[in-house]
Formats: sequence, structure tokens, C-alpha cells
Amino acid sequence: MSLGEFDLIAKFFTRRVTRAALGVGDDCALFATSPGMQLAVSSDMLVEGRHFLPTVQPARLGHKALAVNLSDLAACGAKPMAFTLALALPRVDEVFLDGFARGLLALADAHGCELVGGDTTQGPLNICITVFGEVPTGQALLRSGAQAGDDLYVSGRLGDARLALEVFRGALALDGAAFEAVRSAMEQPQPRIAFGLALRGLATSAIDVSDGLLGDLGHVLRRSGVGAEVQVDALPRSEVLRALPQHWQRQCTLAGGDDYELVFTAPPQHAARVAAAGLTAQLRVTRIGCISAAPGLRLIDADGRAVVDSFGSFDHFKP
Amino acid sequence: MSLGEFDLIAKFFTRRVTRAALGVGDDCALFATSPGMQLAVSSDMLVEGRHFLPTVQPARLGHKALAVNLSDLAACGAKPMAFTLALALPRVDEVFLDGFARGLLALADAHGCELVGGDTTQGPLNICITVFGEVPTGQALLRSGAQAGDDLYVSGRLGDARLALEVFRGALALDGAAFEAVRSAMEQPQPRIAFGLALRGLATSAIDVSDGLLGDLGHVLRRSGVGAEVQVDALPRSEVLRALPQHWQRQCTLAGGDDYELVFTAPPQHAARVAAAGLTAQLRVTRIGCISAAPGLRLIDADGRAVVDSFGSFDHFKP
Repeated sequence: MSLGEFDLIAKFFTRRVTRAALGVGDDCALFATSPGMQLAVSSDMLVEGRHFLPTVQPARLGHKALAVNLSDLAACGAKPMAFTLALALPRVDEVFLDGFARGLLALADAHGCELVGGDTTQGPLNICITVFGEVPTGQALLRSGAQAGDDLYVSGRLGDARLALEVFRGALALDGAAFEAVRSAMEQPQPRIAFGLALRGLATSAIDVSDGLLGDLGHVLRRSGVGAEVQVDALPRSEVLRALPQHWQRQCTLAGGDDYELVFTAPPQHAARVAAAGLTAQLRVTRIGCISAAPGLRLIDADGRAVVDSFGSFDHFKP
Repeated sequence: MSLGEFDLIAKFFTRRVTRAALGVGDDCALFATSPGMQLAVSSDMLVEGRHFLPTVQPARLGHKALAVNLSDLAACGAKPMAFTLALALPRVDEVFLDGFARGLLALADAHGCELVGGDTTQGPLNICITVFGEVPTGQALLRSGAQAGDDLYVSGRLGDARLALEVFRGALALDGAAFEAVRSAMEQPQPRIAFGLALRGLATSAIDVSDGLLGDLGHVLRRSGVGAEVQVDALPRSEVLRALPQHWQRQCTLAGGDDYELVFTAPPQHAARVAAAGLTAQLRVTRIGCISAAPGLRLIDADGRAVVDSFGSFDHFKP
């Protein structure tokens, strides 16, 4: 017996909403931002084979679909409020939906982010989430604020998600424990919400690393009208990644994608406050370079020698 | 030469935003509701073959993708503000994108609704729009407010979109002018924004007809804890539809779907104000029945005889 559309919404996705005046089940969801706050909105669409593998556990997919959206709020320093979910499914698969909803709603609960509406339809598997947060007016972290002389930082570690993808692709092999560690980075990224909030008033610019460090940093540099020097050997990476040849280390950290860490800039006089923000959020924070007035992105190694950028950023319309 | 993802966003979808503090091109869009206003949010996903035919003109598809979302704002009595667009495309097709963006943005401009962000990716064609409006706190039109004794109304005409679909399916044939008229109803629905605003403080409940009158009215009745009597021969329909056998007329008006008209309830003492709201919005408004305390939906013909409901509502997971 198959569930119809309305039963499906009711069974898996209707929850009591507390923040929203009206949640799933009317034409619109209704809610309000607090006085003095701006709404921060981001929308991400996930497609099978491009953003996730068909073999991913449904609960992990539910987690990741929301995590990549929350990561955009983190990069703006916004506090999560609510989200909508639009879902195209080839068929009603209750095992899939049960797992997907569990993973999705567990992460939503962890960040106080309420499901307030959405849409379900039949079609090739596609997950589109739009997330809403709030940030005090004028205090959002933007891509456009980096200043010459700023330090350049990244949260957490880079490259494990790409490493896992290369194992799935058969380009590399890892033993079981190592593979599980990097697979978790790929399938269960943790949006850096608390850290993003801590960076308000401290960072001059921020972006989350979704398409690879070089590409995403490039957006900051273009928007800010500045350049940067990045110390490629300083990029934070796991022991698993460190055990691999240098080429893989650089490929995965510089142009891996799917990291969902925050890259941000802050003036040198804020270095101690940046370190403190990392401690508060229980997150490793690494200085990886600095911002220059001269445009362009220069990569240097531990000995100060130039590294040629042959890595490229991820583009959804390039192979 | 194919456009990459970022070029594509820039070329077709970047516009100067006036309402939003920050539009396409940062991690989040930022904007604020006016004091005393609630945010109204709705999200709809359109899939090829289910919500539109592969042969539809791109400009009409762009129009419709936004129209179905604006229709949800209309049903809440909300004023459009902004929207996000997430788009999965099999390939970068500039002819398609140019037409799609033109149709989409023309309707957006007509309603002062700004594109503030989104996502593009490679995948089976899928269009997911999330739309934002604002409504004075507590004044949104809900599904839950219908009262026994209320009159039941519908805007515009019902059934032409379904009739067009049946022609595409080969179940019916129409001559050229008649077909173009109903095809336009299917492909270029007009969201009833002005009328929805005029119904604030007047209608006790409202919903837009997307899955068919009976099914959508059913949501209102369940949410409001009431029943209704609908006069099937009073349902407003085009001359094209009136020329067809009674079975088709009833099928298309009662359970056609894709109408995007407003079904709403109002107490009899507001009848003159309802008529005036229709005149102001230059929209035909028809009383099609009344709300009863007794639950259930009763269909009657022009002679007061019961009509058996064998029509069914549209469900995206039923054939």
C-alpha cells in the first residue's frame, strides 16, 4: 500500500512548531524575525550522483541536506530559525523517508531550526532546502569585507570529504577505520553555527568551503577587491590525509570541496579573540595566510617557494 | 563553449536588488520585514513531465514556476517581497535559460518580487522556488477559519488548465483558438495577489486551487472543522469548457488542478464587499456554495439534486 502525498507529509514531516506562527499544512508558513534583526536566507539543491552517492544511508543524507544549508547561515554569522523542504522522490519508500527524516530532524533540533513547510512530488530524487536565520541588522559576515593586512583563517580540517569521494571512485584505497573517518567527514559535515556566531564583530569576511578552498576564497577576494597568500603546507588536515602523497594532500585541501568549514579574515590585532572563539566553539582554528592589496591568489610552501595552482575549483557544470 | 556555474548565475540571474540588503552572490540573502509584519514563506518544486510538459516554451515555464509560488502568497493575503531559485539542469542551454529567466523575471517585476539568491546544479530538470511575502501580524488568510453559514466563493474560472492537459494527452481535441485559450490557462496562470490582499479582513479562510477544487476545499473543511455544499452547475467555466459534455465540465472544474484561483469563505454580510474586492482586482468572483456545521462535502446540481463525487483530487504519488 502506498502512501499518498498528504499522508506522507503528515507521517514523516509534520511536527509541532514553536517559533513559527504556522507551520506545515497551510499555503504559507508564517513567522517573524526579532526586532532589529535581518532575515538571512539560503537555498541549496542536492541531486543524486552529484551531491551524494546512491549508497548513502538515508539518515546521513537527511543530515547532510540540512547541514550544507546551515553552513551558509554559519558563514553569515546568522542564528538558525526555520527551514522549508522540497523533495522529489521516484517512489514512496517508507524506509528511506523514515531514515531521511530522522537524520534531518535530529540536526534541525540540535540547532533549534524548525521545519515550517515544503513540498513533495514524484520525480528523480532531488532535495531542495531553504533555510532561514536571523542576524542583527548590519552585522552579517559578508564576502566583501576582507582588508589588506588581515590574517586568513580556516576552521576545522580540509580535504577529508574529497578523500572519501576518491576512495568511492576507486582512485585510492584506505583501511576500514581510516575510510570510516573520512567517510563521516563527507557524509556528516557539521555546520559551524556556534563559531559563525562567535565571529560576528570579529571577522571582516567569511565564506563556507563547499566548492573547494581556492574557489571559495576566490569569491571573497573578488568581492573584497584584494588578493591573498596561502601557505599550502599550513592547511589543517587529518592524519589519514597526511599519510598520503603530497599531491593528494594538496588536491584535497586546496580544491577538495564539501568541507563546510569557514574560511574567514580578521585583522591581526584580533588574533587572540579569534583563538578564543575557536576554544569556545571547541573548534580548531588555523591561520593559513594573509590578505594583500595586490590582487590574485599566491600559494607558497613551507619554505616560502611558490606552488603552481593546477587544482581548480569544483563547478557543477564542468566534468 | 559551455558556461560554468558561476558565469551562468551572473549572466542570467544577477540583477540589482533594491529591497534586499544583499542579493545573489553571498552565502545568504539578507532582508527584513517591515515592523508589525510577519513573513509568509512557501516553497514549490516543479518536475518535468509532472508539472509541465517538455514542449513548454521556456518563458512560459519561467512564468509558471514563480506563479504557482506567488499563488500561495495570494492565498494567505501576503504581499510578495522576494524569492530564491534553485535549478537543476541537464546541461547549460542558453536558449532555454534566456527564455526561462525572461518569463520568470517579467512576472517577478510585475509583482515587485525580487530574486535574492539560489543555487544551480547539474541534474534532471527541476525548479524549486521559495517565495517570501509579508502580511500584518495576525491578518494572514488561513485554511482554518471557515465558519458554518459562510458563503463559499471562487475567483476567475476553473477547469481550463485540466482541459488543456487532456488535449495534450490526446483524450480530447479542440480547434486552434480554443486550444490556445486553455493552453494559456495551463501554462501562464495569473497569481491572484491583488485579490488576496483585498480579501484581508474579509475572508474567513482561503486556499489556492492547485490540486483541484474538491481536494483543496477538503483541506479547508478539515482544518476548519466544518462541511460544505457546492453547487456544481454554478462553477465558473469558460465557453470552451461549456461546449463539452457535462462529464468533462464537472471533471475539469471539480478536480482539474493547476487552476491557481482562490477558493475562500466569507460571512453573508460581507457579500457586497466581496463583490467590490473582485471589481477592484478586475476579477470575476462567483458564489459556489456555503459552509455547514455538518462535516463532509455535498455536491448538488442546478435542480438541487445530489451529484455523486467520483472525481478525486490530484495526488503527486497516485497515478
